Formats: sequence, structure tokens, C-alpha cells
Amino acid sequence: MTDGLATAPAVALKNDLFLRAARGEVTERPPVWMMRQAGRYLPQYRAVRAKSDFLTMCRTPELAVEVTLQPVELLHVDAAIIFSDILVVPQALGMELHMDEGIGPQFPDPIRKAADLERLREVDVETDLRYMLDGVRLARRELNGQVPLIGFAGAPWTLASYMVEGKGTKNFHVAKRMLVEAPEMAHALLSRLATVVGNFLVAQVRAGAQAVQLFDSWAGALAPAEFRQFALPYLARSCAIARTAGVPVTVFAPGAGWALEHLIEATGCDVLGIDWQQEPSDVRKRLAGHRVALQGNLDPSLLFGKPEFVAHRTRKMLDAFGSTGYIANLGHGILPETPVESARAFIDTVREWTAPAASAPASGTAPYGRSSALLA
Amino acid sequence: MTDGLATAPAVALKNDLFLRAARGEVTERPPVWMMRQAGRYLPQYRAVRAKSDFLTMCRTPELAVEVTLQPVELLHVDAAIIFSDILVVPQALGMELHMDEGIGPQFPDPIRKAADLERLREVDVETDLRYMLDGVRLARRELNGQVPLIGFAGAPWTLASYMVEGKGTKNFHVAKRMLVEAPEMAHALLSRLATVVGNFLVAQVRAGAQAVQLFDSWAGALAPAEFRQFALPYLARSCAIARTAGVPVTVFAPGAGWALEHLIEATGCDVLGIDWQQEPSDVRKRLAGHRVALQGNLDPSLLFGKPEFVAHRTRKMLDAFGSTGYIANLGHGILPETPVESARAFIDTVREWTAPAASAPASGTAPYGRSSALLA
Repeated sequence: MTDGLATAPAVALKNDLFLRAARGEVTERPPVWMMRQAGRYLPQYRAVRAKSDFLTMCRTPELAVEVTLQPVELLHVDAAIIFSDILVVPQALGMELHMDEGIGPQFPDPIRKAADLERLREVDVETDLRYMLDGVRLARRELNGQVPLIGFAGAPWTLASYMVEGKGTKNFHVAKRMLVEAPEMAHALLSRLATVVGNFLVAQVRAGAQAVQLFDSWAGALAPAEFRQFALPYLARSCAIARTAGVPVTVFAPGAGWALEHLIEATGCDVLGIDWQQEPSDVRKRLAGHRVALQGNLDPSLLFGKPEFVAHRTRKMLDAFGSTGYIANLGHGILPETPVESARAFIDTVREWTAPAASAPASGTAPYGRSSALLA
Repeated sequence: MTDGLATAPAVALKNDLFLRAARGEVTERPPVWMMRQAGRYLPQYRAVRAKSDFLTMCRTPELAVEVTLQPVELLHVDAAIIFSDILVVPQALGMELHMDEGIGPQFPDPIRKAADLERLREVDVETDLRYMLDGVRLARRELNGQVPLIGFAGAPWTLASYMVEGKGTKNFHVAKRMLVEAPEMAHALLSRLATVVGNFLVAQVRAGAQAVQLFDSWAGALAPAEFRQFALPYLARSCAIARTAGVPVTVFAPGAGWALEHLIEATGCDVLGIDWQQEPSDVRKRLAGHRVALQGNLDPSLLFGKPEFVAHRTRKMLDAFGSTGYIANLGHGILPETPVESARAFIDTVREWTAPAASAPASGTAPYGRSSALLA
């Protein structure tokens, strides 16, 4: 099946904090990583990026793996996430993708009418996205069991809205207009994406990813009725496919704080990502009855503060989330202008944190060992 | 005091639905208006706009009033809102403001360091914003009691973030960075704005506004801790000043759905604006114990649908909100590309709606006649 780079042989994982927390276990301290941790805030990343454009980095396993490993080596995070971009899936579907410096991603020929859907190719993820799977294989090998490797993909609604808008936008009005004016076309596109995305995640696990995350980055663009109709069912379908691979699945739908319970129920995710707009203690209270681990949620803009400030705010977050089924992270991707010393303060604070003394697990935060069976 | 255009003599209000709903009363049907109803979706607005730039329209009472009245005459909304822009306040503080076609508002010399605050002038709202108050006086006279006139202003956090960013932005990172790096500077700026904004609203009421609305348009850019520290107290101070004028005050903080209870408690507002991301039935349930009228919240992008679709979704919203202390509106400003027939379908559906038979006010939606005493 993997006629490219062979899948790495199983090596014992030296740090399995992330996987244990993702299964809902109590951990001695929360694992920590940062969304977009392989990114421009690191001078070492910028050095690689200076020599290659973004898409070349995505498409060249050696380069992708080099930056994937940087935060593990430099900052001692507890998980690596393969360097790539959610838009590799629309590209595999045949859409021309430009990534120009300072402009952001663009599809010069966006999907605007039903006939445009016919332009989309059938995707065989193993061949059409092989470069990314090769990156996963190589990263897994290079990590050599230091920390687990996370694979990822964009969720159907988020990918569809990019494909329809053709570029980033503040309000996603073109995409939202499609939902209202041509709902059947939207459903056709979303349905197509749901399967490809699910299959892509399974392929990443086969290639060596030990967990996967679905990013529904534009969840917040939809009102509840539209979210339930156009985002949630397709996210759920991708997630259902991904879950057959037997590793923890994280769902992150920033901007849709109202939907946390719906996300858990519809997707059956192992881990729910929490964005920075949520108050940790409120979230713990709301989700007390749910068997799901939580991941998040420091506002990345707080990392503009001095290290002592970052440490203070990080500890407040940790105290509120506790150490049961909890993965410390930011509530959104780390910002390019972030000082490395602040990122380090965030990571180090988590690594040094211990749960307040005499803290029997609070109601609703008891370990539930959710997917141990699957992972055994 | 008003040495310009004299304040219009009191004329009996022919349609006081808006004011009664704002006081928490049961109305025979909900009043309806649309945020940004004097706007580009109307060909009659575009005709005025074709001859003058945006700021000239804001600064010329005759032009501002012409477009203020258009939706009343053309669409029969139940309230007029004076045509203006929230950025007239920073401009009055001495900031140079550019409004270029297709680029949006820009402050070429944004506030970036403490010394920049010294550039800001003392504002006497009666003189420095007299053109806007003259517009209010003229609008009130021209309306001649048809419907009430709403005045408005931007809330301190929203104005401050524009002044610091210098232009519209997706993430408000420059402004959020200021909150973390220079909190005392942020507090100084916000404090200054809170007073000017409050005074400005009082002056609008003196000039004839029969209600006022505070727009904290960028509330959603802040995490809860920062919102409570940098947005809420200043919004509350502006609101407290505005409430001394004795007319209903509406607070609208889109993107901060988690904060509804905090907004009510901190500001004592008469009416709370609800954005399109909230589910009406959920909001009614959450706020059942609060003495506040609600306004909102149809997603403006739904107006891209056919009139029957718009009518259907509008009726669903009305059924959920009911007719006690409720003002029908969009959950955000109407979009420039909206077909007029859809806007008309929205308005007409509300005007023709009657509460489902045998609907004794549901628990928590009983009339409470909140500010009748103030308004008597």
C-alpha cells in the first residue's frame, strides 16, 4: 500500500502524555502543544521558509518534517503535528491553489455554480496526497518515539467555503449566499469533501499519525440553523470515517462556542478543541456529563505579554481545566509575531505545573478511559 | 444650548411600537427595523451616495436625513436611525479619518504609544459633533412623529481598537497587543472614550433622539477575561451616562454571545441586541429572569434567499422571540448586496405576524414595564 517511504516500524513511545490525556485519563501534568507550532514565530522555521515557498514546503517531505520537528526540539512540546495546510485537499480535488506572500491562499477559479463541481477530480488519497503521507511516514521515523505525531485535515464546511470564496474573507458572504441560493449544490460539495477528508485522515493514520485533528476553522461563520445543516453532518461523517482508524480524533470548531455539546454528540470525538473565547471554568461545568477530553485554550494574543504574564495566565487556565482528560494548547494558532520566549513561557509553565494539592477530580472530571479499548 | 437648528417641537408619535417594546411591554406585533437600513442595498441611497462621499453625507444634515428617512418611506420600518458612523467620535478627538471607496475607514496616524494620547483633543460634543446633532434635529422634524428616531455611538473598546489598529482588521492583534503590553495606556484611552461616548448619546437625546444604541462591534475580538477588563466597564460607563437622558438604551455586542448576562447586569441596558449566531429560543430561555427587552437577530446573509424563504425564516424567529419586549431586527447590519425585495419580505413578514393563538406570555417573557416611569 505504501510503495513510497515505508511506514516506520513501531517504536515504544517515550512520552505518551498526549495520548493518555486524549483518552480521558488523569495525567501527572497536562500534555502541551500549540496549534501552528511549526510556524513563522520560530527563526528556525523562517530560515527554512526563506529558501522555499509555502507549498513547496508542504510538498517536500524533508522540508515539512524539518519544521515539524523544530518545536519538539526547541520547545519540548508533548506532541508534533505534521506540517501541511488544510487546502491540500481542494488542491488534490483539482483546484489550482496560489499561496502568495502577504496575500494568503487563493483559488483563482473558485466554485460558483453547479457545473463547477464537475471540474473536481476523483481523489485517491494514497496517490494524490502521497507527498503528505510520505511526510507523515518520515516524521514518524525521525521522531523515533519522542512524542506522538498528529495528523490533520480541514473540515468539509471550512474547505467548501474556501473553495467557493476563492480566498480568505471576513464574512464568507459568497459561501453563505450559496447555502441560501443553491443548498443542493452546497450539499453535493460538502458530501464529496466529507468522504475525501475522512479517507485522508485514515490514510494519515496508516502512514503513522498517532492521533488526528479536524479543523472546522470557519464554523463561526454560520448561524446555528445553518451550522446544523451544512457543517455538523459533514464534520460528523468525516469524523466517523476517521474514527475507524482507531486513534484519538480531535474536533476543533472555533467561533462556535454555542455548539460544544452538539459537536460532541454528533461527531463522537475523543477530544474537543476549545477556542480562546470560552471561559475554561464555564466549559468544564457545561461539559461535565460528557465523555470527552478537552484541548485549549489560551488566547494567542496573550503571548504578546512578558513571560511572567504568560505564566500567570497559563496557570489560571490550568487550574480551571485540571489534569483529567486535558491537553493544554492555545485557543487558536500561534501568531507569527509572537516572541519565542513567550511561547517558551507557555510551554514551560505547563510542564512545571502540578494540580493544586488535595484535588480529588471534581465532579464531571473523573477519568473515563474513553477509547482505551480502541487503542489497546 | 442648540444655537444651530432648533430642536423640533414635541409632536405626538403615531407609531410607538418600538418604544413600547423597548420598555418590555407586550405589543400587538413586534416593531421592526434593520441595522444599517439606510445603506447601499437601497438604490435611492446609492443615488445620494453617487453624488457625495461617505463622510460628506455624515457631515451634511440634509443628506444624512434624506437617507435616514428612506427606509421609513420605502419599507415602512418602525424606527429610523440617524445616518452617521461610529468613527465620528475618534475624528472629533482629532484623529484624521479617511474613508476611501473599497478600502474602508482608515486612521493614517493610529494610536500606538502613550505619547499619541496627547494628540487627542478635549471634545465638546455640542460643538465638535454639532453637524451630527443638527442631523438628529432635522431628522426628528422631518419624521414628524411617524416613527421614533434612534441615535447611536460606538462603544469605547470598539472605537479604541479602530484608533489603535488604524483600519479594519480580521483579528485586531495590534489592539489586543496593546491590552497586554500597555494596559495602563489602554485604560487611559478607554476611559477618555467612555465619557465622550456617554456625553455624545445624551446630546443626541437632547437633540431629539428618542432612543439610543451602543455598538460594541468588536466585542467578539476579546476573550472573556479581557472583555471584562477592557470592554465591559467602559461600555457600562457610557451606558450609565446615556441612561441619565431618560430614553431606552440598547446595547449590542456582537460576537460575545457568552456575555449576554454580563452585559445586562453591568450596563443596565433597556434593550439587549442579539447577534445572528444565537439561537432565539436558547436566548429566551437563558435570559428568562432578566428585565430586558431583546432585539435581533436574523442572519443578514439569509436575505440572499428568495422572499418566501426569508418570510419562512423570519416567522421562525418571531415564533421563538414572541411579542413581549421584543424588537425584530437583523443580527448584524444588512449587507450591501441584499435584494430590496428580500429586505421588504423581512419587514412585511414582521408587520403581518401575529403571535400564535392562545399564547399566554411564556414564563420569563411577562411584561415588566421596565422604564415606563422614566419615560412617562
